[in-house]
Amino acid sequence: MGKYIFGVDVGGTSVKMGLFDVEGMVIDKWEIPTRTEDGGYRILPDIADSINAKIAEKQYLKEDIEGIGIAVPGPVDADGVVNKAVNLGWGVTPVKATIEKLCGIRAQVGNDANVAALGEMWKGGGQGFTSLVVVTLGTGVGGGVIVDGRLVGGADGAGGEIGHTRVVDGEEEICNCGCKGCLEQYSSATGVVRLAKRALAKTDKPSILREREITAKGVFDAVKEGDQVAEEIAKEFGDILGKGLSVVAGVLNPAAFVIGGGVSKAGEMLFDYIRPAFLKYVFPGAKNAKFTLATLGNDAGIYGAAKLILDVE
Amino acid sequence: MGKYIFGVDVGGTSVKMGLFDVEGMVIDKWEIPTRTEDGGYRILPDIADSINAKIAEKQYLKEDIEGIGIAVPGPVDADGVVNKAVNLGWGVTPVKATIEKLCGIRAQVGNDANVAALGEMWKGGGQGFTSLVVVTLGTGVGGGVIVDGRLVGGADGAGGEIGHTRVVDGEEEICNCGCKGCLEQYSSATGVVRLAKRALAKTDKPSILREREITAKGVFDAVKEGDQVAEEIAKEFGDILGKGLSVVAGVLNPAAFVIGGGVSKAGEMLFDYIRPAFLKYVFPGAKNAKFTLATLGNDAGIYGAAKLILDVE
Repeated sequence: MGKYIFGVDVGGTSVKMGLFDVEGMVIDKWEIPTRTEDGGYRILPDIADSINAKIAEKQYLKEDIEGIGIAVPGPVDADGVVNKAVNLGWGVTPVKATIEKLCGIRAQVGNDANVAALGEMWKGGGQGFTSLVVVTLGTGVGGGVIVDGRLVGGADGAGGEIGHTRVVDGEEEICNCGCKGCLEQYSSATGVVRLAKRALAKTDKPSILREREITAKGVFDAVKEGDQVAEEIAKEFGDILGKGLSVVAGVLNPAAFVIGGGVSKAGEMLFDYIRPAFLKYVFPGAKNAKFTLATLGNDAGIYGAAKLILDVE
Repeated sequence: MGKYIFGVDVGGTSVKMGLFDVEGMVIDKWEIPTRTEDGGYRILPDIADSINAKIAEKQYLKEDIEGIGIAVPGPVDADGVVNKAVNLGWGVTPVKATIEKLCGIRAQVGNDANVAALGEMWKGGGQGFTSLVVVTLGTGVGGGVIVDGRLVGGADGAGGEIGHTRVVDGEEEICNCGCKGCLEQYSSATGVVRLAKRALAKTDKPSILREREITAKGVFDAVKEGDQVAEEIAKEFGDILGKGLSVVAGVLNPAAFVIGGGVSKAGEMLFDYIRPAFLKYVFPGAKNAKFTLATLGNDAGIYGAAKLILDVE
């Protein structure tokens, strides 16, 4: 077994890269720009160049490297081929084969939301759990499902898309996915803003939210300041998210939900709103799920990518 | 490796037992009564006696037996201990250890709904799929989730409880689980009857359902006879079940849903009602799931129990 692993997280703007030892300690961390123009054909060669340069800089031998794990924003099949990654400009792209050829080192590829979940299990808020669901409340709502320590990628690479769990009947606005009433429409950062605007339009009650640009963080800050309208918004957010997670719990009975993404910056107080609804709606046999906060932030992807290598011999 | 496997499915009235070769061919099949009185303390010794007698009858050696797989109606932990099985009168019961002691053969234990799913994957309607969800529409709605060929038991043995996915807001009646609006309240055999009674009470339209005792089978028979009210009931059933399964698909992205239980006797026509709703509500990346019928009926448990032995060395 080699001594080092590269963990690579390919985003639409930059590629995050990490050099780890096999215990998961970070030795080095850096970024390169993602060149998405012209169908993104430079992205993989850029990554390979950067890895090869780092190996030279550190005076490692190729045999010292156990592998290269790569997280990409799109569905990945069992052969490490990405079908489509809109944010990178990619059509069908054989990521694993290309990186292996360019670096002469074995590679593993996973969907970024799923890989981030693996990272949180390994070194973040999910440590100690082997069956868990990582829920990322960011611009959208992403998810990663891990059962008995293994990622659930899904038959078409769409496993863990819990943001598109239908939780509300009668919604009029359309979700990015084309359906209506998806969890993402209420629990993402933009979803919280939407809930807030609706709530403020429905009432004449005074609220400090009327005096500010509304953000998800601003809503929860206002709750801390005792704002009554913000409190109602937080309750609605918690009710919908708790209901959505109760459904996930009934299917999977995970030991924990790890909550990350921008909305999770509100901290543990989120759980005061999510947990009561979760307990109200959940199948009793699955009610013991713990709630924890993700701790790796934007580094979850590089950690999880490195872990991909350890999980597949 | 031994040549034979026992598959045992412990029900509240009788214990189904099967003797299989390691390819899954049935050599013998029989039942014994389940003696649930006095905390059900005779159940496991009865099973062991029956197995030991069968081994003697067949003139096998103990070494010929690869193992004994057992399906029980309750949550099972990683050590083969059942926490509680109300239908058997059991409290905490170490099923695996007890059978291993009484028979001198290794045993594996699983929850009956999950084990039945394994059976359908191995020899029934789920053959050819490794990521699938088996949905049993019987008195209740049971489920078994298999990911990459492995059962998802859940952290507390409550994995696959998809009958208690909340699908309807504003339901007034309470589900057996204590919540309201669960899939089971609309999609089980009793759920279909409930939908039918509600539909008949709401309209004055003539219907042959008014002249019969209402059963799930009767509703779908009436659909075949062109009954308009029955058609509306089938549509409502399909809409709710399709919506519930769309949520499951968003979490797991299975390759197939295998539909079993009494309601599935209506046959492939069920899919004409489930599929449109499924496609309407599902996350697009998970829309390719196939729908198939379970084929093993009441034998799914003994097949799956036998498979438990092959899955764990």
